[in-house]
Order: sequence, then C-alpha cells, then structure tokens
Amino acid sequence: MASSSTTNATPPAPSQTPSTTLNTGKGLLLKADLIAQQYRTEVQLHSPQNEIRKPKLVGILGTSSIPSRNYAEFTKRQCIELGFEFVLKKTGAALNSAEGENGNNGEGEGVEEAIIEANEDESVDGIMVYYPIFGGRQDHYLQQIVSPLKDVEGLHSKFHYNLYHNIRFLDPKTLLSAITAQNEITSKDNDTPPPGMVKSIIPCTPLAIVKCLEYVGVYNKILPYGDRAYGKTVTVINRSEVVGRPLAALLANDGARVFSVDIDSTQEYTKRPQMTPEQKARYHPRHVVHASLLSVEACLAISDVVISAVPSAAYKVKTSWLKDGCICLNVAADKNFEADVRDKASIYIPAVGKVTILMLLRNLLRLREY
Amino acid sequence: MASSSTTNATPPAPSQTPSTTLNTGKGLLLKADLIAQQYRTEVQLHSPQNEIRKPKLVGILGTSSIPSRNYAEFTKRQCIELGFEFVLKKTGAALNSAEGENGNNGEGEGVEEAIIEANEDESVDGIMVYYPIFGGRQDHYLQQIVSPLKDVEGLHSKFHYNLYHNIRFLDPKTLLSAITAQNEITSKDNDTPPPGMVKSIIPCTPLAIVKCLEYVGVYNKILPYGDRAYGKTVTVINRSEVVGRPLAALLANDGARVFSVDIDSTQEYTKRPQMTPEQKARYHPRHVVHASLLSVEACLAISDVVISAVPSAAYKVKTSWLKDGCICLNVAADKNFEADVRDKASIYIPAVGKVTILMLLRNLLRLREY
Repeated sequence: MASSSTTNATPPAPSQTPSTTLNTGKGLLLKADLIAQQYRTEVQLHSPQNEIRKPKLVGILGTSSIPSRNYAEFTKRQCIELGFEFVLKKTGAALNSAEGENGNNGEGEGVEEAIIEANEDESVDGIMVYYPIFGGRQDHYLQQIVSPLKDVEGLHSKFHYNLYHNIRFLDPKTLLSAITAQNEITSKDNDTPPPGMVKSIIPCTPLAIVKCLEYVGVYNKILPYGDRAYGKTVTVINRSEVVGRPLAALLANDGARVFSVDIDSTQEYTKRPQMTPEQKARYHPRHVVHASLLSVEACLAISDVVISAVPSAAYKVKTSWLKDGCICLNVAADKNFEADVRDKASIYIPAVGKVTILMLLRNLLRLREY
Repeated sequence: MASSSTTNATPPAPSQTPSTTLNTGKGLLLKADLIAQQYRTEVQLHSPQNEIRKPKLVGILGTSSIPSRNYAEFTKRQCIELGFEFVLKKTGAALNSAEGENGNNGEGEGVEEAIIEANEDESVDGIMVYYPIFGGRQDHYLQQIVSPLKDVEGLHSKFHYNLYHNIRFLDPKTLLSAITAQNEITSKDNDTPPPGMVKSIIPCTPLAIVKCLEYVGVYNKILPYGDRAYGKTVTVINRSEVVGRPLAALLANDGARVFSVDIDSTQEYTKRPQMTPEQKARYHPRHVVHASLLSVEACLAISDVVISAVPSAAYKVKTSWLKDGCICLNVAADKNFEADVRDKASIYIPAVGKVTILMLLRNLLRLREY
C-alpha cells in the first residue's frame, strides 16, 4: 500500500470511516490514491512478471514544459512499480534542457517522427505524448497520427466518435480501417462485449473521472448498465475536446443530466430532453445537446456533482453557489475550488491524476490483446 | 428463495440487471422481497432451531378489521417460516367474527388486559398489537403500556425520544426505568455500541424504509456513519407519529434535508439549517425543525427521494411534479403514486411490508438479548 501514506480518505467499510463530517460539519476530503488502489491491483494482476517481455509504453516529450517533464517522471515511476517497461523518447526542446546544453531544438520538433517510429516498432505496446505541444489544431492532428492500436490515451477520433455515439464495443479489426464503423451497438444491458467484439477505448482522463464518481456512489449500481447516473445532475466546467466534452457526453450517455459550462455558453447534455406529454419517445439511445439559458449559478444550485477542469489559477467555483451536500471534483492542475469548498460539499476530490495513469495502463493492456 | 417468484426487481450484480430503463425509458420497479432477503438470512441465522425454546411473539388482535386480520396471518406465516413461535391472542370484536358466532364484544375490548398479561408472561419475547384500534390518543396510550423490553414495534415513547434526540445507544437497564435517560451519546463514528450499551430500538416501519433507501444507494457508504444521507433532499408525505415524523427525524439525523408534508403544513427537518456566514456552528448533533414556506410542488421539484404514507386511496402524488430520476417509495396500503410514476422515477418501491416484518423480528431478537 505505497499510496496509503498520502491519503486521508477512508475505505467504504463502515467501521473505518472517520467522523470528519460528524465533528466538524465539513465534507470528506477524498484523495485519489484510494480510488486508484483497486485499479492498481487489477493492472498488476494483468501484467505477470514472468511474461516473455513486459508490456512497453513509450512516452514522447517534445517540449521544455516543466509540468510535462514532471508528468513523464510520474509515468515512469508508476510503470516501474507496476511491472511495465517505460521508455522516454525526448525530442525537440526537451533535449535542450535535459542534456544541459544550450541546444537550439524547437518546441515540438521531431514529435511526429517519434510517433511514427513508435507506431512501427513492434516492441511498443502503447504511445503517450505529453501535451500541450503546439496547442489547438496541431495537437489534434498529432493525436490522429498515433495508431489506434497503440493509443492508450484514447485521443484518436475513432474513440471520440464511439463515445459521442454511445458505441461501447467494436470489432478490433476496424481499428485498422480509416473508415468509421457503421454498426452501432448501443443498447447492450451489461458491459460484456458481444462475441468477436471488444470494449472501445475511452479517453483516460474522462474515464478516470467516471471511476471516481463510481467510487463515491454517483453511479447507482442498482440501475441498469448504461443508465446508472440517471437522476443525477452534473455540472462540468470547461468544454475542451480532451476532458470537458467527452466527459459530458459519457455522463449523459449514462443517464445523467449534464450542464456543460464554458466561457461563452452553457449547454445541456441529456438522454431525456423535456418534451410534451404527447411525445412518447422521450428516451434517446445516446445523449442530445441543446443550448441552456441557465446561468452558471443556477446550474450549480441544482447540481449533485460539480467537476471543474479550467487551466487557470485565477478561476474559482464559488462555494456559496454550490448545493449543500454536493460532490466536487477538481481536474485542473490548479485548484478550481475555494479553500472552504467542504463547507458545502459532502465529498471533495482535489485531483484525479493517480487514477488517470492507471486508466492509461489499463488501456495499454487491453490494446495489447486486441 | 420463496420470494423470488413475486419480484421483478434485480440484484445489484451488473450482469443480472435488466434493461428496463434502457429499452422503455421507464424507471425500475423494485419489490421489497429482494430487499427483505438479506434480513431474512440474518434473522434466520440468529434464531437457531436447536434452542431450548424458539423466540416467541404474541400478536394481539382486538378489532374486526380485515386488513389487521390479514396482517396477523402474514405475521404468522413469516414467523413459522423463520423459526419463531407466533401466538395470536384475539380479544374484543376479533372474537366475534373469528368464532362465527354473533358475539357482542366491543372493538378493542380486552386489548389492554392482553398486553399486561403478555408483559408478565416470561415465555413471551415480543408483543405486537394490530392498530388502529381506538385511533389517536387511546392507541398512543396502549403503546406506552407495552413493556419496552418486549416492544418489538419500537412504539414506546422511550424509543421515540431516543430517535428524536439522535440517541443511538442505551444502557439496557434504563429500559426498566420510567425516567428518561439523560446521557446523550450522539457523535459515535460507527454503529458499534460502547461497552455496556446496546442499540436503541427503532420503530419498525421507519426503519424498514431506511433499509430500503440504503439498498437503493440513497445512503452513501463512503460518508461517515451518522451522516450518510448528507446531500440528499427527501420529501416525506404524512407526519404521523407512527411513520412520518419518526422517519423525517431519522433521515435528518442521518444528514438529509427533509420536507415533512402534511395536510395543514410543511416543515423542514435538517441538521444544517441555513445561517449567515458569521454563524459558524451550522451543524447540529441532531435535526432541528422549522416551518417551510415551500409548496408541495416546490418540495417535490427538488427532492431526490419521495416517500408517501397517506392512508387514502384518493390521494395521489402527481407524476408531473416529480424531479426526473427521483426515487419513490409507497408506504401506504393504497397506492399514493400515479400509475405512470416510473415515467419520472428512476426507482419505484411500491410497498415495504415485507421488510417491516423482518425489522420487527430483528428487534425481537435484540430485545431478547438485552
């Protein structure tokens, strides 16, 4: 239990639960280590030490960014601990600082070539690229270059398409095709893939957030698979293609009513849009999106769960706007919640990185089998 | 699994969950049998067949009421099935119809004497009286006559006092004293009684409802004991002393925000009343009650859980007033929800009687040890 020293969260066993809320009135501070633990065990079980070769992850670092370098080091430690091989491939500006020489390599130089090399190297099982590199569209382009068979981060548009269309299973052969699969399989009543199919890969940060929400009981296991967030209202702040939008879609596909808040607009994602009583087919196989006229304050006032992923130290969700007893989850590197968030939140999860890396390694083990 | 034939509910195991919500858009119909099953096992384990004598419950039926007679027969069947001895003591008007003679015994005649006889009979472990008999205050009087040591229904004012004051444990000696215990033990962080103390008895219908809510995930096991309903908004319709008021108090003591709705008024029960930011002590060791100006419609619109216990076939909770995805629970003999309740409710529990009887037998086993 290497992680237990840094957690003050508690396992769900009643006898070991602290009286945090009872004595202080404050909500529970739940660090991600504890949530990561179950996946750590799963990933370790699936990477036997006596295999001919360990599963191998290549990390591509092409910038001088300190957070990216730290993240690469964190990835390496996790891989070693869990019996994976990790090779860090430095290119471009990453070489300048790393070698201590005043190199003149540009930011992001050589990343594309490094990706292609790793795609073709049969000893490589998974590829992880440390973004942002160029930002925006150019990073999006790089994400399409990574082979879907090695895309452990789940950033390829194939996987986003499946997620947005609530396609949960795929024929592994289609991963090699440039043509989007037409067969939509949406209404399976459990998470076991049909014969010949495998689970689609889900972007690892949104997936890690869903796993955290499962852990704290936002997903109701008594409801049918595919609809377990029904009855929950969630606000997701930030609508990026890496975290916010896929997360809103995932949660809405699982039955939640989701407000997706960004600087310029608020949207509602739901499988159950309000209709007149005459309209019978109120339930969609996947979420639909429409503009919302609610203010952020109004969204927060009715939200059971608030997830914030704004990459800015200045941005703070106002505690006074939260619904008493809600669950708050911070995804950003900076804290998007005020220091007194637990005066209102029943549970506060300050970071999810430790779960994200395990989702990535889990994706790697799956892709290796596909 | 004698109960499985009458349930269409599903165990929480993902692989066995039906796609009710997925295919129809309707919420889950969850019958109480499945929830009762775990307590059935617990009660059976605690009543070994090879004891010198079986635990003995006396039922006192003093009226000609058909529902009471049916309930007595149901109690008898459950007792036999679970290895308890059940003796039905008929008095008053219950004798008239039972013996097929045109007796002239009055309604409720002899009930008080039957209670005292059972109190004094050392072979009797628990006493259950089939109410209503005289109704109102006179029934309340009879409830105080039953020895607290045999009050399996938990209707004695000692137990109500403990419940309203969030006193969860008691010294069994105090059950014999007419003086209310002064030692409040409220902030224990788990449900294991301190040395020399035992769990207080909780009225069996409100307790059964809490067990149903635990089953469907309204109680969040990750939160500390005593505060696991924090973040949930509940409306309880009807404020009787047998179900509505103790239930509202139980749920609020466990952290929920509860609207208690009755014909003439709505009250809010909460441990966390709204205060100005200057008022630090916003968290109470037990619930406080204040009048609410919200309409029933407004309460329902924000309620995650709606529990109705109105003894009238005419009373119906409007489906259109419910929050989409809420959990609805009917306690009344008549259906208090409209036929289309599952168009809005994610889970609907139509009755709790099968859990109530198990809570009663569980109370009996506990009192026998005290």
